[in-house]
Amino acid sequence: MKRAGIKDVAKEAGVSVSTVSYVLNRTPTETISPETSRRVLEAAKRLNYVPNLNARSLSSRRSNLIGVLIPQTEPGRELVFSNPFYGDLLSSIEYTARQRGYHLLLSGTQEDQSYLSIARNRGVDGIIIIGTYPGENLNELKQMDIPVVLVDSYVKDEYFHTIGIEDKEGAKLATRYLIEKGHRRIAFISGSIRENGVNMKRWQGYCEAMTEAGLPVEEDAIYSGTVDYEYGAIAAHEFVERGRRQSAAFVTADIITMGVIKGLMEQGLRVPRDLSVVSFDDVNLSQMAYPAFTTVHQDIAEKGRQAVLLALDAASRKERRHTECILPLSIVERDSVMEWRE
Amino acid sequence: MKRAGIKDVAKEAGVSVSTVSYVLNRTPTETISPETSRRVLEAAKRLNYVPNLNARSLSSRRSNLIGVLIPQTEPGRELVFSNPFYGDLLSSIEYTARQRGYHLLLSGTQEDQSYLSIARNRGVDGIIIIGTYPGENLNELKQMDIPVVLVDSYVKDEYFHTIGIEDKEGAKLATRYLIEKGHRRIAFISGSIRENGVNMKRWQGYCEAMTEAGLPVEEDAIYSGTVDYEYGAIAAHEFVERGRRQSAAFVTADIITMGVIKGLMEQGLRVPRDLSVVSFDDVNLSQMAYPAFTTVHQDIAEKGRQAVLLALDAASRKERRHTECILPLSIVERDSVMEWRE
Repeated sequence: MKRAGIKDVAKEAGVSVSTVSYVLNRTPTETISPETSRRVLEAAKRLNYVPNLNARSLSSRRSNLIGVLIPQTEPGRELVFSNPFYGDLLSSIEYTARQRGYHLLLSGTQEDQSYLSIARNRGVDGIIIIGTYPGENLNELKQMDIPVVLVDSYVKDEYFHTIGIEDKEGAKLATRYLIEKGHRRIAFISGSIRENGVNMKRWQGYCEAMTEAGLPVEEDAIYSGTVDYEYGAIAAHEFVERGRRQSAAFVTADIITMGVIKGLMEQGLRVPRDLSVVSFDDVNLSQMAYPAFTTVHQDIAEKGRQAVLLALDAASRKERRHTECILPLSIVERDSVMEWRE
Repeated sequence: MKRAGIKDVAKEAGVSVSTVSYVLNRTPTETISPETSRRVLEAAKRLNYVPNLNARSLSSRRSNLIGVLIPQTEPGRELVFSNPFYGDLLSSIEYTARQRGYHLLLSGTQEDQSYLSIARNRGVDGIIIIGTYPGENLNELKQMDIPVVLVDSYVKDEYFHTIGIEDKEGAKLATRYLIEKGHRRIAFISGSIRENGVNMKRWQGYCEAMTEAGLPVEEDAIYSGTVDYEYGAIAAHEFVERGRRQSAAFVTADIITMGVIKGLMEQGLRVPRDLSVVSFDDVNLSQMAYPAFTTVHQDIAEKGRQAVLLALDAASRKERRHTECILPLSIVERDSVMEWRE
């Protein structure tokens, strides 16, 4: 089947090629009668005409494509989605984009890959970057006139739109919750604590909540590794080796909590009987697990939705206006915390 | 910063534009001296030249883009990745593509969306479709000269490459395993059983294993709903309502098993004490859960890797040769099965 071109549509509708182009691209500046518009659309439908979006993106610079970059902090790592947080977030991004006629260009970028070359080469209308740190890779993007939305990043720059949560406040909520339940010795279990990263903020929130309650922040209560299941299990074993000196833990990600619970079970210990846990994220998994996690709820679906809307909104506006969007947090009480009495 | 074009590179290297194009596109038919080639590459590097892939795809029809379509069986459904199987699979597809310089175009297509328009509009080099049924949408794709790889689909057609597993055999392995452990009454819990779908094959495997052992396939042992956590919990409640007449269950997906275990726990019942379970898929989650699942292992990472390699290999060949790839299955023994003695 030979593919119908724009000329065929023009011939079929009895109008000029530019009229077809105006109608199909909905160019707002041109005046086309409803009757002509109808004729063009019907002709396009009859001929099964599909515009070549790559060709279109060269002229109108619209590709209906949103780049989603998930920087890989460990090079060569395979499982972008081993943390279900990314799956939940990407589901929402994909769905929101789909409803608006956009597709996603997905890349788990490695540190040696240039964000800029992806943006340029693909002609994306907007870019969503999930969890990134300041750096040259990010700065390069400023050369482009494409909206960039940073999700869960503490990069502060007029050029970028941001969407995130108040990680420090969330950590305070979690830690205070445990203190209210009577716990005095509270472990802090997290991924690596990097400057300008979310774990640094959560660490600060934990420290502030402890300090305001007059409780010491003790070195042997701190566990810092990687944001994955495996590290959670390792931390649980280390917790036992260090003599089980805490009655509760604030764990900064649900995926780590999965590992902590499993690691404790391997040693005959139970959550919350032997260790109360408040987790963070509220991924779908956290209510499926046993015990279901008491956790800091963030609206992951809303985060994904807002990221797409921010990118599309910014792409449609001419002037540049930096938008910062912060989503609320709350504690969801489930089954991983017990009251503590000395 | 003005972006360097191919003409700038040609000028810088002191060669013609076509020579630059030959070198950068690695056109195998042209003879270019190593010295010229080196000069062009160095000039391109000096000028920070980045080819416009959209422009390239119009001429050479190579976009370095692979379309990944995940048909949504329930329209308007948000969570493409609520089943961790998709996250595990997509991780592997993304990683394999990334290592080869490809990006993914991701779409959770709805039944009313044409696969063809995505293939055409985006100029993808290959398409991977995960779990689809025969239909017009799929047939349309035959108009295109693009390799299509179907993952986990029982569509038999010379036009499509397929990669999958022997679902019926896997179900037999699972059911026989339970029979060997002494179980006689075995429930079958699965998603909807559709013609030419994987659940239909797993259902057939279950029936065959029961029959060959001289065991009856009883209607009240069959649970069929949706492939999700929620349905697993519902099935567990129904199991109790029906009077707990089975000592074991073959559950056709790990995500359903998560729900079954949780639903039983809500009623004070435990796996495997009150119900032995053999699951299917071996997603990462199945070893993190409590109890860890005894499950039919399929190599999800290898499935994703092979899907990409099949697509790229087919794209690089001129002649069309249908490739069918079947990955092996095995039982992984963990903690969800107990021996049964009457």
